[in-house]
Amino acid sequence: MLHRLNPNSPIGVFDSGLGGLTVVKELLAVLPDENIVYFGDTARVPYGTKSRETIIRYSREIVGVLLKYKVKMVVVACNTASSLALDVLKKECPVPVVGVIDPGAKKAALSTKSKKVGIIATSSTIKSGQYARRLKVFEPRVRVMSQPCPLFVPLVEEGWLANDITRRVAHEYLDELKKAGVDTLILGCTHYPLLKRTIASVMGPGVMLIDSAREVALEVKHILRIQDILRAESSHTRHLYLVSDEPDIFKYRAVRFLGTSVKNVRQYSL
Amino acid sequence: MLHRLNPNSPIGVFDSGLGGLTVVKELLAVLPDENIVYFGDTARVPYGTKSRETIIRYSREIVGVLLKYKVKMVVVACNTASSLALDVLKKECPVPVVGVIDPGAKKAALSTKSKKVGIIATSSTIKSGQYARRLKVFEPRVRVMSQPCPLFVPLVEEGWLANDITRRVAHEYLDELKKAGVDTLILGCTHYPLLKRTIASVMGPGVMLIDSAREVALEVKHILRIQDILRAESSHTRHLYLVSDEPDIFKYRAVRFLGTSVKNVRQYSL
Repeated sequence: MLHRLNPNSPIGVFDSGLGGLTVVKELLAVLPDENIVYFGDTARVPYGTKSRETIIRYSREIVGVLLKYKVKMVVVACNTASSLALDVLKKECPVPVVGVIDPGAKKAALSTKSKKVGIIATSSTIKSGQYARRLKVFEPRVRVMSQPCPLFVPLVEEGWLANDITRRVAHEYLDELKKAGVDTLILGCTHYPLLKRTIASVMGPGVMLIDSAREVALEVKHILRIQDILRAESSHTRHLYLVSDEPDIFKYRAVRFLGTSVKNVRQYSL
Repeated sequence: MLHRLNPNSPIGVFDSGLGGLTVVKELLAVLPDENIVYFGDTARVPYGTKSRETIIRYSREIVGVLLKYKVKMVVVACNTASSLALDVLKKECPVPVVGVIDPGAKKAALSTKSKKVGIIATSSTIKSGQYARRLKVFEPRVRVMSQPCPLFVPLVEEGWLANDITRRVAHEYLDELKKAGVDTLILGCTHYPLLKRTIASVMGPGVMLIDSAREVALEVKHILRIQDILRAESSHTRHLYLVSDEPDIFKYRAVRFLGTSVKNVRQYSL
């Protein structure tokens, strides 16, 4: 990078839809003075069942939009895009790019005592093998068990966070992992933290759940600090939400992920 | 139309993904001599949660592709696109356009004795009110009850067609309809015929399930006949499948919907 980035520039964050808001929530807590531009690709959501090539194409388009908003950093707040497109984006992007895989994998590698770590995620994330590879970098002795959970996202979107059906689906997906003795479970999809209570009740108190959102926010803070582009304390911040489908559905559903309501939502067609 | 369309031209069929193959299956049975070009928008699936504006934009793009393949007719084999985009497509398209709503609504209106008809579909299809409106055109005295079933599509895609979880979800969605005394239930999404057994067991033997795929195929045949563009008997037919995401996942999953395997699948990025 030839010139220093502007500390007042926003942090760019993107996801296939709403899930990335769980990362925004943690960014707001850890970095309350930062401006944020979020992009949710709601017209093409979900990413978790699509091919690497398509995910790369979509991610590139979105990063192009974020750069128009002069972001000083890009956070790929989507596990699928982080698994499949991060390397490409890092190579091409003129500002730092952070994904959600490494912070979660690192935390899990440091936490496990049994050296058996479970990963639950979308089919594409699991298929990429990216979590397993990164875990082994941080802890070579680790044994990894992966389980795609394609029904968890629709269950969250239906709002069935802890009913009897969701518990049964959770048992279907998680019983094998529990039996295998994992002591650490990575929630490898930004929707899954909303199912934390149900997942925890199936896995039992001996299993630590790793929700990478908080780890990602800390990593972002670390990078902004070493690049010396943290924004100064300010009473005025600007948070803009761009979505590729119409804003109303997004607004309505965002509360569940963010904990507060969102203003300033605009459509940006791709 | 100024010139007569070519009978040897293919029928164009499109859907957001795989579901439209249930319509192709019936077309193959009813019109075995026809050539078919199918477009599955697998890079942007599903449509059922997206806005009217987005669905219209996507549908227009796909019809543009089908017209490049010189189709003599367009079948909108997707309930969401039929509900939200059919009027626009009919106005703009130089060849006949058929959706899946009218054939199903007509059959239901003719079948109900209690004059209470249930509709299950995606959220966007229900929200459009299109089925209810068309039902009332065919049978003004009808009372319509609608129920969005957002988990049915992911359950089908997970392959859980009749297990205990799927039965519980079906009860959650359908018990109210049953209690209300509907005697006819429209399966208003091309994925739902795969859940027929489970849905039938919840609704009981007194309720007729309307699967519009067969009705659509008959309607297509009718239109080709009155336009005098039915293809002559032939030992050689060509079926081409275009998908916006990579072909392998489509190929692998198509069997479940079509009953046979598909060859000739090509990627066509939008």
